[in-house]
Amino acid sequence: MTKTPDVGAEQRVLEDDLVATVVMSFEKAVDPRLREVMQALTRHLHAFIRDVRLTEQEWTTAIEFLTAVGQITDDKRQEFVLLSDVLGASMQTIAVNNRAYRAATEATVFGPFFVDDAPQIPLGGDIAGGAAGQPCWIEGTVTDTDGNAIPGARIEVWECDEDGFYDVQYGDGRMAGRAHLFTDENGSYRFWGLTPVPYPIPHDGPVGRMLEAVGRSPVRAAHLHFMVTAPELRTLVTHIFVEGDPQLVIGDSVFGVKSSLIKQFAQQSAGTPTPDGRALGYRTWARTRFDIVLAPVAT
Amino acid sequence: MTKTPDVGAEQRVLEDDLVATVVMSFEKAVDPRLREVMQALTRHLHAFIRDVRLTEQEWTTAIEFLTAVGQITDDKRQEFVLLSDVLGASMQTIAVNNRAYRAATEATVFGPFFVDDAPQIPLGGDIAGGAAGQPCWIEGTVTDTDGNAIPGARIEVWECDEDGFYDVQYGDGRMAGRAHLFTDENGSYRFWGLTPVPYPIPHDGPVGRMLEAVGRSPVRAAHLHFMVTAPELRTLVTHIFVEGDPQLVIGDSVFGVKSSLIKQFAQQSAGTPTPDGRALGYRTWARTRFDIVLAPVAT
Repeated sequence: MTKTPDVGAEQRVLEDDLVATVVMSFEKAVDPRLREVMQALTRHLHAFIRDVRLTEQEWTTAIEFLTAVGQITDDKRQEFVLLSDVLGASMQTIAVNNRAYRAATEATVFGPFFVDDAPQIPLGGDIAGGAAGQPCWIEGTVTDTDGNAIPGARIEVWECDEDGFYDVQYGDGRMAGRAHLFTDENGSYRFWGLTPVPYPIPHDGPVGRMLEAVGRSPVRAAHLHFMVTAPELRTLVTHIFVEGDPQLVIGDSVFGVKSSLIKQFAQQSAGTPTPDGRALGYRTWARTRFDIVLAPVAT
Repeated sequence: MTKTPDVGAEQRVLEDDLVATVVMSFEKAVDPRLREVMQALTRHLHAFIRDVRLTEQEWTTAIEFLTAVGQITDDKRQEFVLLSDVLGASMQTIAVNNRAYRAATEATVFGPFFVDDAPQIPLGGDIAGGAAGQPCWIEGTVTDTDGNAIPGARIEVWECDEDGFYDVQYGDGRMAGRAHLFTDENGSYRFWGLTPVPYPIPHDGPVGRMLEAVGRSPVRAAHLHFMVTAPELRTLVTHIFVEGDPQLVIGDSVFGVKSSLIKQFAQQSAGTPTPDGRALGYRTWARTRFDIVLAPVAT
């Protein structure tokens, strides 16, 4: 841990008094939760400044950095979410809000690329919508933590193409590599997607420059996004990762990996019969299984 | 202090492990100071999220707030500086970097309204440059902490007009209410300015909305800005405040007040002879004294 340097009693009292004054300034907030959050923010922010003895030049650099993060953000790009992600703040917020519960599937980051109106596909349908990549068969079940099948659970899935781009990043209005479907009467689901590939988060902005300055890779481990909703059950936002992906060792740039979410994507040679008889000609394909367990609400 | 809630050992380990992973991700930073700052930032940011058990909705609100702060910032308005100011972070940074040293004059916030190329005035000149307000005679000395007079010290002064606006806020290119001058061979200085008045920081943006939500006044206690530089001595950025200003009791919105900086501004009735014989007709005026003591560099 960073240790607050010994600055002498007089200086410490002066700094303590300032923290107390700022904390007190929030005392009149009508909303008690807002008061609590702002007072805690004040304490931690001041503790940071005091612990590192932030210089005035570093303060200026921080202001300029945050300004640049704000200026590059628009309706297509959310650099503050990226910043939160690469500092692990997004993942910590998820950890705080999605407590482990029995065998419930673990959550991970939502990411900035979900869209609300992805098309519905039938069971066994294809989410690719023209996105390029190796075909991948994904199947599994949705159950509660007592093992009861959940028919009619809504599954949203989304992923990048083989070049590492989500449809929305092309900026031409295309919808590809995303869909939603529903589990059947046995709580089972199956669909065609693309074998996930690693890709860098957008790194041509201030967050990318920060990662470069500290020697960190902007690359995310290959993954496929899921959001699963069903009545009376806690909504699950998660990914599955690809066993053997070297980025799992290098490190996921947003700290989203949990070992329980790493799945075997079994490579199939060209000509291997597909589960639904789909003809893939000379193409290789892959398959994986992801059994999803949803916690009760309010756990 | 906020107490980290008791979340159970399993959850605590999970959250601790995430902090450790993020801290470790900065281990390869080539610049050891950057590594130290980012690792401390990570620890304090995660501690904040964990202490308040930040909800996902609150996280979203925070992202939206920071985005709004970035979007309203331009070359005329720096909302991140305002945010740092109202959280006391600016003042804490100044406290950390301007240690008390014997009788040296205390520092306070720089503020966003300094400009580099304010005109020079002679001793006894007027900084108003057409800005409206009650005339005010300001005089004093610049010495070091051994009491030696500092001839030729450069004094930058700037302030708002009687409507509470700095020249740059009018956006019409005017230069008023600011100047620089130099101490004479005895280390003395004197000039005409305006009696300072309280004014609100710009509060029509996200920072203003935050202050309103927590029941805080955006008003700054009346003040006159100084920046004093001389060779071998620590540059002093400070204000003087007006004894009796009710805002001193209500609270300065950026926590800039130090009792040693509160000065008597003696009101003079119309017709009272001025120190330099200036004719002010039927107008009242004020006078004050500010003796400035500069610390040695590197203290």
